Amino acid sequence: MDLGRRTVTAEEIVAFAKKYDPQAFHLSDEAARKSHFGGLCASGWHTTALWIRAYVDYWVAEDARLHAAGIPVVAMGPSPGIEDLSWTKPVYAGDTLSLSSRIVDKRISRSRPDFGILTSENGAENQDGTPVMRFTGRIFLPLRPV
Amino acid sequence: MDLGRRTVTAEEIVAFAKKYDPQAFHLSDEAARKSHFGGLCASGWHTTALWIRAYVDYWVAEDARLHAAGIPVVAMGPSPGIEDLSWTKPVYAGDTLSLSSRIVDKRISRSRPDFGILTSENGAENQDGTPVMRFTGRIFLPLRPV
Repeated sequence: MDLGRRTVTAEEIVAFAKKYDPQAFHLSDEAARKSHFGGLCASGWHTTALWIRAYVDYWVAEDARLHAAGIPVVAMGPSPGIEDLSWTKPVYAGDTLSLSSRIVDKRISRSRPDFGILTSENGAENQDGTPVMRFTGRIFLPLRPV
Repeated sequence: MDLGRRTVTAEEIVAFAKKYDPQAFHLSDEAARKSHFGGLCASGWHTTALWIRAYVDYWVAEDARLHAAGIPVVAMGPSPGIEDLSWTKPVYAGDTLSLSSRIVDKRISRSRPDFGILTSENGAENQDGTPVMRFTGRIFLPLRPV
């Protein structure tokens, strides 16, 4: 699934950092230039937040499309967690991320047989095609259309 | 390390969700009551953001204390990623989270011998002592005091 593109502005990087991850290299370009990063870059938790936003937006649009086509849709359920999240390169101010998700497994939950579990490999790459973040996620889906 | 406590308000849950995770059960108590969650609850990515904020605040204070005591302090470096993040229970509006971190391993980086790698087990539990989130994190630390 192509979850679209997001350009990450300096303003947005600093706003997220002020609220949730106030380390110098996420707050100030000047401080970041003196750090190992070499320039203002986003909190890794900001990158994951941008990914989930793109994922939700994708499914809201896709659910509407399927509903309109008369195809049953299930609600999105809770996520039990993720595996092996890697921040492979910094996300710098002005970078445009391409966000993606690929379903790699689906099965019935053993503990909750009224739920399915989808496993997906999720990622973000920058405008140069360099991967900046990836993780394997799982989500519960109730096995009845809404 | 006891990273302190944070009470998660409905207002904060909705503000984060509007920006980053606009699913109905994170946006509206009424919609959440009809969902499997049963009440307004925080995005899992909001919980991780609250954890990193508590972690940064802890280290800012600790660095200041060590500096004042004349003890060398290293800068906090980038994180290559995390392993096995679990959201074990929902975080509901009004919950007070206790946030924690425990160092479980330290070693010299093989690829960057001028950096150390700290591994920590990190968590959040609610006011009833129920774990709501945990993950294993890694962080690079440059091996020279700042």
